[in-house]
Amino acid sequence: MKSPLDPPGRLLLGPGPSPVDPSVLDALAKPVLGHMDPEFVAIMDQTSDRLRSVFRTRNPLTFPVSGTGSAGMEASMINVLEPGDSIVIGVNGVFGARMADAAGRAGAKVTLVEAPWGEPIDPEALGSAVRSVNPKAVALVHAETSTGAQSPVDLVRREIGPAPLLIVDSVTSLAGIALEVDKWGIDVCFSGTQKCLSVPPGLAPITFSPRAAQAIADRTTPVQSWYLDVSMLRKYWEEGDGGRTYHHTAPVSMVYALWEGLRLVLEEGLEDRWARHQEVGEFLQQELTDLGFKLYAKAGCRLPQLTSVTLPKGVDDNLRGRLLNDFDIEIGGGLGEGAGKVWRIGLMGFGAKRANAIRLVQSIRALVS
Amino acid sequence: MKSPLDPPGRLLLGPGPSPVDPSVLDALAKPVLGHMDPEFVAIMDQTSDRLRSVFRTRNPLTFPVSGTGSAGMEASMINVLEPGDSIVIGVNGVFGARMADAAGRAGAKVTLVEAPWGEPIDPEALGSAVRSVNPKAVALVHAETSTGAQSPVDLVRREIGPAPLLIVDSVTSLAGIALEVDKWGIDVCFSGTQKCLSVPPGLAPITFSPRAAQAIADRTTPVQSWYLDVSMLRKYWEEGDGGRTYHHTAPVSMVYALWEGLRLVLEEGLEDRWARHQEVGEFLQQELTDLGFKLYAKAGCRLPQLTSVTLPKGVDDNLRGRLLNDFDIEIGGGLGEGAGKVWRIGLMGFGAKRANAIRLVQSIRALVS
Repeated sequence: MKSPLDPPGRLLLGPGPSPVDPSVLDALAKPVLGHMDPEFVAIMDQTSDRLRSVFRTRNPLTFPVSGTGSAGMEASMINVLEPGDSIVIGVNGVFGARMADAAGRAGAKVTLVEAPWGEPIDPEALGSAVRSVNPKAVALVHAETSTGAQSPVDLVRREIGPAPLLIVDSVTSLAGIALEVDKWGIDVCFSGTQKCLSVPPGLAPITFSPRAAQAIADRTTPVQSWYLDVSMLRKYWEEGDGGRTYHHTAPVSMVYALWEGLRLVLEEGLEDRWARHQEVGEFLQQELTDLGFKLYAKAGCRLPQLTSVTLPKGVDDNLRGRLLNDFDIEIGGGLGEGAGKVWRIGLMGFGAKRANAIRLVQSIRALVS
Repeated sequence: MKSPLDPPGRLLLGPGPSPVDPSVLDALAKPVLGHMDPEFVAIMDQTSDRLRSVFRTRNPLTFPVSGTGSAGMEASMINVLEPGDSIVIGVNGVFGARMADAAGRAGAKVTLVEAPWGEPIDPEALGSAVRSVNPKAVALVHAETSTGAQSPVDLVRREIGPAPLLIVDSVTSLAGIALEVDKWGIDVCFSGTQKCLSVPPGLAPITFSPRAAQAIADRTTPVQSWYLDVSMLRKYWEEGDGGRTYHHTAPVSMVYALWEGLRLVLEEGLEDRWARHQEVGEFLQQELTDLGFKLYAKAGCRLPQLTSVTLPKGVDDNLRGRLLNDFDIEIGGGLGEGAGKVWRIGLMGFGAKRANAIRLVQSIRALVS
């Protein structure tokens, strides 16, 4: 039986997972503590504090869900929504549609506000839907990983008014572009670890505003999931009268990795990190345009950390396999409407470096010339 | 900001997480691959193969759920049960009750068959309940982590007959005591990584018999969870017509750790590992009895890998804190009925060593003398 494990060292320039800083890998391998050990509880508290800084929020209820980003998405939907509740969801790609799927399974009445792939959700269209159905919540994806388009969350709250809870998927935006949970009036914001945080996949950072926490406390039906029930999870992640209450065994090693990944984000400075993503992403987009690729997302809404392109003549989707095998570079193919026609290239977190963009562009050039 | 992360090196002798072999920690820190990388898919396949060996099953549908053991529990319940389905659940501790909670949230009609804490579930009582309510499924915990008692799963199938699906929680039993998924007629078996597999917490190995897989395929209602929907998860973990279908981003590093942890189990040999747990557990139980502790679980059903004891006069539950702080040894307190009165001591996986039992007993003796 082959041992030890020996995965090749890929340069991860797909839509995630992104490259991981060596100090985060070191943190993963630290001695495991018990999930109720006071030393681990201190690490949990520091992790929540750092998440608040990165989410730009003062929400007490802020912690990582013990699953990947999609578990955070599901936790958002099923805790906020009760059967029969109404929600308006912006859909302009795979991940908006996924939220609608989860909300439907939770028994909610779902109203979709759609936009073409590669374009942002229109805040006015969300506002109009809200005035029409008076929903409990509005949800949208800040940075659509399937298309490379961002939606103007800051304008959404203005259009939908103060009433609905605002749920935002920040899986690909957190720590990569400006995101202001409190300033923008976001009530529930979830993310993943494996994008601009540059931590391996496995946890879903999430934050709930006091208003969202109250809505959960006011439920009259149980949350359909035991594992993702925030009314129980909060007793483990927050200090209560009797200390911490065991719920499930936290994924200790992954929390270590997140702790360290967040430390690196804050050491760099959130705004400097946003600027780095912006600069490197623009550089790549110019280079790819020069090579004959067309940018897929509409001008004005392009994510710097995730560039989507349509392929020029002479460039086949199968080249991705040669990039992987001959150059050890992973990039992503298209999802849904973009399958076979679109490439998705991430310059995220630790990977958002001009040298990585240059290595990719040179490799593509070598393959197509 | 303190860096690097520097958790103390505890000897983990609680009910889990258990001590982790250094080679598993090394695996955690290997370079991250993309979740669709062919090299990672090969690791996934090897992981499923190894899980089949450890579960003693030929079930094709065998993989780790991307969450902790409780996520595996929930996945079992919500995929097998549709609203209105009937299930009989054996409850003799916290984890049986947890299954009942999850089944109830799934809309199932739940019939409990209870046994006193510290005692096994009576297979005849399950059989009698099955004849009375004719359920779709029967569920019980093989090794109750809250009490240290095991239930005779091998006898359960005989008593309940061939009709109901049999769901077994093997969180604390897998790789610690005999467990025979196919031979015993188990249809759904879930576990956790942080007990006798000695891998950090974060994944839930699970296996479904062809009959259970068919029951899921025959559902007329969607599974309430998107994240844990096995009909979608199987398209990622099993090779289909078009290869693998992306569902969520797998927790790559944790899969590495499980891959390596399973390799160590199979290198040792499953039956040798069971024997090691038996020998070391019996040694500890004799030593603790000599010290004046009373074994909490009933004779004949005591788990070797998890010893529960009631405290003798002069031994206070607070001593656990001194064991942790002064001796760097973690043991567990009681849950539920046992809170404040019971200690739970795990000798699991890499931690199931006579030297660890001796170190614990000497430390307790030093504290109480």
